[in-house]
Amino acid sequence: MTDVPRTRTITWDDPMTGALAAPTLSGLDYMQAMIAGKVPRPPIAVLLNFHLVEVAYGRSVFVGEPAEYHYNPIGTVHGGLIATLLDSALGCAVHTTLPVGLAYTTLELHVNFVRPLTKDTGAIRCEGAVLHRGSRLATAEAKVFDRAGKLYGHGTTTCMIFPAGG
Amino acid sequence: MTDVPRTRTITWDDPMTGALAAPTLSGLDYMQAMIAGKVPRPPIAVLLNFHLVEVAYGRSVFVGEPAEYHYNPIGTVHGGLIATLLDSALGCAVHTTLPVGLAYTTLELHVNFVRPLTKDTGAIRCEGAVLHRGSRLATAEAKVFDRAGKLYGHGTTTCMIFPAGG
Amino acid sequence: MTDVPRTRTITWDDPMTGALAAPTLSGLDYMQAMIAGKVPRPPIAVLLNFHLVEVAYGRSVFVGEPAEYHYNPIGTVHGGLIATLLDSALGCAVHTTLPVGLAYTTLELHVNFVRPLTKDTGAIRCEGAVLHRGSRLATAEAKVFDRAGKLYGHGTTTCMIFPAGG
Amino acid sequence: MTDVPRTRTITWDDPMTGALAAPTLSGLDYMQAMIAGKVPRPPIAVLLNFHLVEVAYGRSVFVGEPAEYHYNPIGTVHGGLIATLLDSALGCAVHTTLPVGLAYTTLELHVNFVRPLTKDTGAIRCEGAVLHRGSRLATAEAKVFDRAGKLYGHGTTTCMIFPAGG
Repeated sequence: MTDVPRTRTITWDDPMTGALAAPTLSGLDYMQAMIAGKVPRPPIAVLLNFHLVEVAYGRSVFVGEPAEYHYNPIGTVHGGLIATLLDSALGCAVHTTLPVGLAYTTLELHVNFVRPLTKDTGAIRCEGAVLHRGSRLATAEAKVFDRAGKLYGHGTTTCMIFPAGG
Repeated sequence: MTDVPRTRTITWDDPMTGALAAPTLSGLDYMQAMIAGKVPRPPIAVLLNFHLVEVAYGRSVFVGEPAEYHYNPIGTVHGGLIATLLDSALGCAVHTTLPVGLAYTTLELHVNFVRPLTKDTGAIRCEGAVLHRGSRLATAEAKVFDRAGKLYGHGTTTCMIFPAGG
Repeated sequence: MTDVPRTRTITWDDPMTGALAAPTLSGLDYMQAMIAGKVPRPPIAVLLNFHLVEVAYGRSVFVGEPAEYHYNPIGTVHGGLIATLLDSALGCAVHTTLPVGLAYTTLELHVNFVRPLTKDTGAIRCEGAVLHRGSRLATAEAKVFDRAGKLYGHGTTTCMIFPAGG
Repeated sequence: MTDVPRTRTITWDDPMTGALAAPTLSGLDYMQAMIAGKVPRPPIAVLLNFHLVEVAYGRSVFVGEPAEYHYNPIGTVHGGLIATLLDSALGCAVHTTLPVGLAYTTLELHVNFVRPLTKDTGAIRCEGAVLHRGSRLATAEAKVFDRAGKLYGHGTTTCMIFPAGG
């Protein structure tokens, strides 16, 4: 057996570059700029190695690839990876519905883990969709699949919407 | 303003070293070995930079420190950090109740985010405690505080308990 | 203004008639017998006045009508009505997937309330669908709509599956 | 075996009597008036037969007694009873923190069912307590016990706080 290098160097951009650009753009424009590489990826996405690949009004899709550096102490990928992907897809789905002048924050996240992820799972895809978009609140659902469409986890969220800077 | 280096190199141990030791120890002994450094920290804890610092029957405590590399695209720490800490403290609290021969898996996680974490928050502490320990199922609750005891998030979980190797 | 009679007499059947029939039938057959009136409605459905109207493999639909007797102390229908409908539709959706010899129990329920129900809402419809059906666990989602298709609440569940009598 | 009468007549008061009094009182005063019988019990409490028995700032306690009329089709008390009690205790705990001029609404409810209730369980007690009380949001936790202190279920909630009439 050959040695597997268990080291990784990550480099990220100042997250305030994006955060300060955000209020000048609609949510959808902000995330399209991120996909186009005009706004830097957020540090958490670099750290856990996942990417926003698709957005539309009320919808977002992330991809990632479970790796050994995501492992928990009981021999599988830590639930935090699925929770983070779901939280990202849920929040971004809500964010796509916001015009310039509105911001959001996530109040709660519920996650169901239905199968363990391992480093052998391969690429995974997390799709988020808004269920309810009110004036002050929004809810959304998201699911994590592998390439064969097998479900690994799913979740829901409640987000509060408020005037940016408010 | 001086330059902040936005790079980090992480090195982790083979997670199977711990995972293979786990079935030979009670949950409490396994986690005490981890605190004592006799079992390697899991990769996820290295990646997100948090530490298990205390365990007792039905209880676990983790500490961490929010940093820029945990940031989301809207200028605060990503909810995934709180979710991962809660999931860890909840699962470990349940794990402390398992004798040799029993294993667990997390079925669901619910997270409430009550205040945003930033890199200025300082050290945080996540405490988990079992609420119900049945023969096949356990539930637990956990909370995230700063040094002043201010609450940032809380959560609950449902875990399934089963014969190790089953 | 005329007087509204604020009294109601309910009469229910022995719930053990149905509960004892359940293990002799697949979940789908049991619920189809209930819709056909061959098995009595459960007391809770009489009490809160809702009906199972449709089942298929992995799916169930209930209807109800919010009334003054469902009210909370702050002038709208109590969230317990939505929670009970969601719990019913979620559990029954899982139950439809069980052959003779398997039973289930609900481990957890998560509910999002997105609009208040009042006695003026009119008939509501709660649709449940299985998301994951494993050998020991199942998850499902459900939504509550009015006749116009407006969403009032949604939820998810985790159920444990086990040998009947086990 | 003697016949058990399976019929029940319930009579309730106009829920708007209480709902219209609510904005003129602090939440704590309103609920103390309800315990003192100066404000009518809400219809849902009559229907499911539970009582508010204790309130303090950030805290509420309800009691009830599981009965055959709460049964589901699988031979135990429907989860909707626990969900309704938890939702009541959680909402009322938040309500006790509101001065005149503020109102609340429940955004989400999470319920863990840890043991089945039956008509032989006897009296149950549901205790709710606020975890976080911010200016616009509050979270709370609640638990259901029998007389011996055995836990049957627990839950959490997120409530939004807003100006009454707003």
